[in-house]
Amino acid sequence: MLIIGEKINSSIKRVNEAILNRDSQAIIDIAKKQADAGANFLEVNCGTLDTAEEPAAMEWLARLVQESTQLPLCIDSPNANALEAGLKVHKGQAMINSISGETERFKQVLPLVKKYDAKVVALCLDDRGIPEGSSAAIAVGMKLVNDLVAAGIPLDRIYLDPLVRTQATSPTAVIDTLAIMQALGATYQGLHFVSGLSNVSYGLPERRHLNRAYVAMSISAGLDAVIMDPTDAGMHAQIYAAEALMNKDRFCLAYIKAGNAGKLKV
Amino acid sequence: MLIIGEKINSSIKRVNEAILNRDSQAIIDIAKKQADAGANFLEVNCGTLDTAEEPAAMEWLARLVQESTQLPLCIDSPNANALEAGLKVHKGQAMINSISGETERFKQVLPLVKKYDAKVVALCLDDRGIPEGSSAAIAVGMKLVNDLVAAGIPLDRIYLDPLVRTQATSPTAVIDTLAIMQALGATYQGLHFVSGLSNVSYGLPERRHLNRAYVAMSISAGLDAVIMDPTDAGMHAQIYAAEALMNKDRFCLAYIKAGNAGKLKV
Repeated sequence: MLIIGEKINSSIKRVNEAILNRDSQAIIDIAKKQADAGANFLEVNCGTLDTAEEPAAMEWLARLVQESTQLPLCIDSPNANALEAGLKVHKGQAMINSISGETERFKQVLPLVKKYDAKVVALCLDDRGIPEGSSAAIAVGMKLVNDLVAAGIPLDRIYLDPLVRTQATSPTAVIDTLAIMQALGATYQGLHFVSGLSNVSYGLPERRHLNRAYVAMSISAGLDAVIMDPTDAGMHAQIYAAEALMNKDRFCLAYIKAGNAGKLKV
Repeated sequence: MLIIGEKINSSIKRVNEAILNRDSQAIIDIAKKQADAGANFLEVNCGTLDTAEEPAAMEWLARLVQESTQLPLCIDSPNANALEAGLKVHKGQAMINSISGETERFKQVLPLVKKYDAKVVALCLDDRGIPEGSSAAIAVGMKLVNDLVAAGIPLDRIYLDPLVRTQATSPTAVIDTLAIMQALGATYQGLHFVSGLSNVSYGLPERRHLNRAYVAMSISAGLDAVIMDPTDAGMHAQIYAAEALMNKDRFCLAYIKAGNAGKLKV
């Protein structure tokens, strides 16, 4: 499981302030906490800033976070200039968040994926928006993956995000998401799947149970990357368990090791 | 989800003693605790007794448990005489645990299923034992279901148990189980699936994470009945969550109600 730490995001008020004030220590603290908790990638997102200010902030943020943790970054912006500002200073293979089937977005981001040999999060939507129902979504996802492969991006650099909706208002949200991953996983050997783990439970009580059930089901359907708070020990334990059950953790050795290290005491 | 309470089983030492001593109050306490916790069926099993003593014990047990809770019973024995002793005194529709593809077992138990119009747990094994790998198991399960249907048992009275193995020693235990449920669920509309929830984690630390991940994955593959300790609040919360995500709980109303009742505070 590839764990992408989600906490360096300017939609979080104190992160926004730290970025505006170029408060290095505040950012380093959040970065290190996520690295210590087992993140494999760290997301950096300063998308709430003015478009003109975002590229400089992203450059500062990317350099700072990578220097303080040595982790690769998931560079997240709706703004291609900001993406490139982060990619320019990134060492090793970055992940771009995100490309999609939207014509303009695809055109803007594809050259960056190629130029920087990056991994890329591919959102399962197109110019018509997020597709309704699994068969429409499967068609949109397949076209997007086909277009990326045709442009020379290898499958194992693509992280398809099925864009799970909110269960409380979309009764087939998770059923559709699992169907998308099963269908595309059966078609494209080596394609990765990524998902955020908390949208699904929006508006419901005691959300952790829903988030954990969602991750277990999704791992059984092929999910192999998550965008999450890596310090969430309960979610981490569920991921260890689900990977053991899917034989991605041969003879449960990682699970047993996590148990011995006290990481499953939640 | 049909929840079958597993605690009245003579393999548990104090239950064995209570049965041998005909200690009604001890059994009633365990029965009521499970009923209060939300069990829909209660298992009764006194299979550790001598074969000659088991039928009388089962009759006592079945009458006592049903009178004290008004719940239907899952009557569990390797011994057809003991099954019938329980069925004779049972009110309403019982569940028999179990029939299988074993020639002798099938012959002995089928007449009871018919005579008492019972639901039946159908174990996915035959004279060769528990099949290795999902394709062998699917074949065994399909033959068993076909034979039951040919004998006049409606699909919605059959609870197929895919017999999940222990993950620590069988790397494809859960993968195979999910494949069996998906294949048979796609073939037989209305067939039920039942599983115990703790075998899978045998021998591993902090077993609850594995048991909960297993139930979430299994519910996404069609599981609709479980044999469990109904007083396990963490497992209950995971089942509420998984059913909400599978749209078996329209607009998550049961989940929200459980939250309001404080049942998800685990």
